[in-house]
Amino acid sequence: MTRELHLNLFINGRGHHEAAWRHDASTYRALTDVSYYRDLALAAEAAKLDSIFFADHVTLGEDIEHATRGELEPLTLLGSLAALTERIGLIATASTTYSEPYNLARQFASLDHLSGGRIGWNIVTSWAPSAAANFGLEQQAGIDQRYARANEFVEVVSKLWDSWARDAILDDRASGSYARSQGIRPAAHSGAFFKVAGALNIPRSPQGRPVFVQAGSSTDGRAFAARYAEAIFTAHLNKESAIAFYNDIKTQGRALGRSPDQIVILPGISAAIGSTEAEAKRVWAELNELSHPSVGLARLSNRFGGYDFSHLKLDQVLSVEDFPDPALVQASRSRAQSITALVARERPTLRGLLHSLAGARGHFTATGTPEQIAGIIADWFTSGASDGFNVMPPILPQQFEIFAGEVVPLLRKRGLFRSEYRDGTLRDRLGLDPVPSQFDPAEPVRRSA
Amino acid sequence: MTRELHLNLFINGRGHHEAAWRHDASTYRALTDVSYYRDLALAAEAAKLDSIFFADHVTLGEDIEHATRGELEPLTLLGSLAALTERIGLIATASTTYSEPYNLARQFASLDHLSGGRIGWNIVTSWAPSAAANFGLEQQAGIDQRYARANEFVEVVSKLWDSWARDAILDDRASGSYARSQGIRPAAHSGAFFKVAGALNIPRSPQGRPVFVQAGSSTDGRAFAARYAEAIFTAHLNKESAIAFYNDIKTQGRALGRSPDQIVILPGISAAIGSTEAEAKRVWAELNELSHPSVGLARLSNRFGGYDFSHLKLDQVLSVEDFPDPALVQASRSRAQSITALVARERPTLRGLLHSLAGARGHFTATGTPEQIAGIIADWFTSGASDGFNVMPPILPQQFEIFAGEVVPLLRKRGLFRSEYRDGTLRDRLGLDPVPSQFDPAEPVRRSA
Ligand SMILES: Cc1cc2nc3c(=O)[nH]c(=O)nc-3n(C[C@H](O)[C@H](O)[C@H](O)COP(=O)(O)O)c2cc1C
Ligand SMILES: Cc1cc2nc3c(=O)[nH]c(=O)nc-3n(C[C@H](O)[C@H](O)[C@H](O)COP(=O)(O)O)c2cc1C
Repeated sequence: MTRELHLNLFINGRGHHEAAWRHDASTYRALTDVSYYRDLALAAEAAKLDSIFFADHVTLGEDIEHATRGELEPLTLLGSLAALTERIGLIATASTTYSEPYNLARQFASLDHLSGGRIGWNIVTSWAPSAAANFGLEQQAGIDQRYARANEFVEVVSKLWDSWARDAILDDRASGSYARSQGIRPAAHSGAFFKVAGALNIPRSPQGRPVFVQAGSSTDGRAFAARYAEAIFTAHLNKESAIAFYNDIKTQGRALGRSPDQIVILPGISAAIGSTEAEAKRVWAELNELSHPSVGLARLSNRFGGYDFSHLKLDQVLSVEDFPDPALVQASRSRAQSITALVARERPTLRGLLHSLAGARGHFTATGTPEQIAGIIADWFTSGASDGFNVMPPILPQQFEIFAGEVVPLLRKRGLFRSEYRDGTLRDRLGLDPVPSQFDPAEPVRRSA
Repeated sequence: MTRELHLNLFINGRGHHEAAWRHDASTYRALTDVSYYRDLALAAEAAKLDSIFFADHVTLGEDIEHATRGELEPLTLLGSLAALTERIGLIATASTTYSEPYNLARQFASLDHLSGGRIGWNIVTSWAPSAAANFGLEQQAGIDQRYARANEFVEVVSKLWDSWARDAILDDRASGSYARSQGIRPAAHSGAFFKVAGALNIPRSPQGRPVFVQAGSSTDGRAFAARYAEAIFTAHLNKESAIAFYNDIKTQGRALGRSPDQIVILPGISAAIGSTEAEAKRVWAELNELSHPSVGLARLSNRFGGYDFSHLKLDQVLSVEDFPDPALVQASRSRAQSITALVARERPTLRGLLHSLAGARGHFTATGTPEQIAGIIADWFTSGASDGFNVMPPILPQQFEIFAGEVVPLLRKRGLFRSEYRDGTLRDRLGLDPVPSQFDPAEPVRRSA
């Protein structure tokens, strides 16, 4: 079987650069206007991308004065986009730390029905410290606690999604039998974090359950991903780091008895594309010109769990001593680690660091012509750094239009990317095995997750 | 101002009679097929109804062998219907007992944006006893506890919905100011049930918040409705009971300083409509013929909190001694009360009682020609029993098609019902005042709810 490249469009604000909202080429529509998301989803569908994706944070976030905040809620938005699109996969983030399993399991199953099997769940533990206080907690739980809860959360929702047999509903008007009660089994879950007695109140969905996507890269995050994730979004500042991550995850997955092709690894790429390299470079220059240091500084502080960097000067050369030990960070540990590694390696000024993170918040940034970008994608894909990409255009919709219109055709020419959708669910498109059912004759005992 | 009649279509399974799913005239589509709901919503929109409505129970429910269960989840479904319709109001039920305020506030605000201000929230405390065990609870909280939580829940989500000024977003590309931080205030809520620190992470929605709908009729339920509800769904077996309820609620509302026209009371009506009275009667006969006693018995037991009625014979004449004291029922107290009142009054057999509840689970049932049904609606509306109706067709879509095609035009002829939608939100359509904002100059202090 030839490997297939997978491409996901990550829709974020008016683009992934923090100053994109000020750039002339970004949308002028409000971030609460569904027509903006509809048009992006339709453009991604026209380009035959695997899926689109929305992140989520259950808190307002820092520095609303200078950064866009306040977007639509992903699950309700996917409800609309399921109706407005036909083929593209739809992936929403939802938190295991701040949701109830029964409610979330229902909403995802419902979305999978509404979309005809096109839904994925980006499983996160919510890194932002301020979210805790919106849910009655004095302070954020530590990473290990959050992932312990996440593990049990995935177990219990998996039981709920597996509580109906495919053929539980008889719908036999003549005899008056609506369903076989033997085809519906209670979750009967009782664990450290959750007790859920009943069956889900919605029939098994087209995919069995949403595709499991994961996006944390700390040690705990990787262990979780190796166990559950079927697709992984991950942030790397360079190819070497991506290769190391790729090998680590596939090795860990193998050790757990999983086939490596059942974990699709998608690093983020934020590409500024121009018809010449100089034009592409100008995109970053324009964006950096528009960016406000307080936005990057507030995000930096947040990633490190609220650490105060305000005494640093913009033109000061940084060293790792200016940062807290990333191994102790409870907020976004993997991002904290990659930032301090960059500081140790490159010794940037604070302004330089903020600019390099402004592009895509710690993801890989690329700059070039469509040919150059297609070349980078092909290179990472064929040299063991990725199974595809999480496409994070710095400016939306403009930079995605260039990507879809000029980079994607080049990937097709290289035989790497599909020209048409085949029939099937998002799982099928990602090359993932069907989800087993506890009711399948060959599988009499419930498998975990 | 002339009073306007309001009509809401309550979409439930394949119709409101429990055996509708077996009737030839009910839909053959699966209850997870969005096209079924889309077509009903579009039919209701073509008839210019105020709104459509979905109930919700966070548990599978009783007797799946003989009754339809397992529908789509309302909030995600409204996401799709917001995209598939243009004008009609969309009302979803959600529970204050089993949801987190921050999550629910976001999802409703998001839906209000997605629909351009067409959303209502049917606020319930979830009467079904088995729901508790899906959320880690040994047993269901009592009615008073559930309503105490519901009160605080509505207070806190109201603060969240009021956390953004209408003009908080500046979106000024030139100066780089995205929002005014003085236009966004934290909820800063700390109460017996909830602590929610932050502001909502979504801007104020077109209606300010969803229209508050309420559907409980116990003493606690009425007090809650009088304080918060802007529209009320209520179940009455006859007009006298509806008049008493109407007067009680409007009186209680007035005592709280509310204007009676700001509480729109909509009793349920389940009408079997035929071109002759005999044909209409035949609808009920056919449905009762198809109904299964175990369905009604299981529901009866559930309404009374799991009371065992299995020793009763179908042809046995009932007396109130066969029932537990409804005043002590913690599940669906108001429904338990109206059922025992009916037993005391009419002394039906068990079979007779189950048939009369099978029609619409304790709501008013009517039988007749379009003229007769229009007459009943006009009579209740003009004699102080209602401000409109919650339309609960026994068979869907067939009985709604007759209602929309034949009863609605007669209501128009009587000058009671609109022929066209006017511009505006669902609030405007229901004649409700705009939601005040804590940021309005005239209203410097935060008003509760
Ligand atoms: C592409 C991508 C998207 C992400 N989206 C979210 C998100 O929406 N919400 C969230 O809480 N974390 C999200 N994360 C994860 C955090 O950035 C962070 O890595 C993680 O929550 C902390 O766990 P870790 O230390 O295991 O990485 C995302 C990560 C990536 C790579
Ligand atoms: C039309 C209508 C729809 C209702 N829908 C729901 C529902 O979806 N979920 C729910 O838990 N209760 C619902 N209720 C309320 C319950 O039937 C019940 O009355 C209430 O939860 C118990 O409180 P009470 O004793 O105050 O009535 C509905 C009531 C009416 C009249």
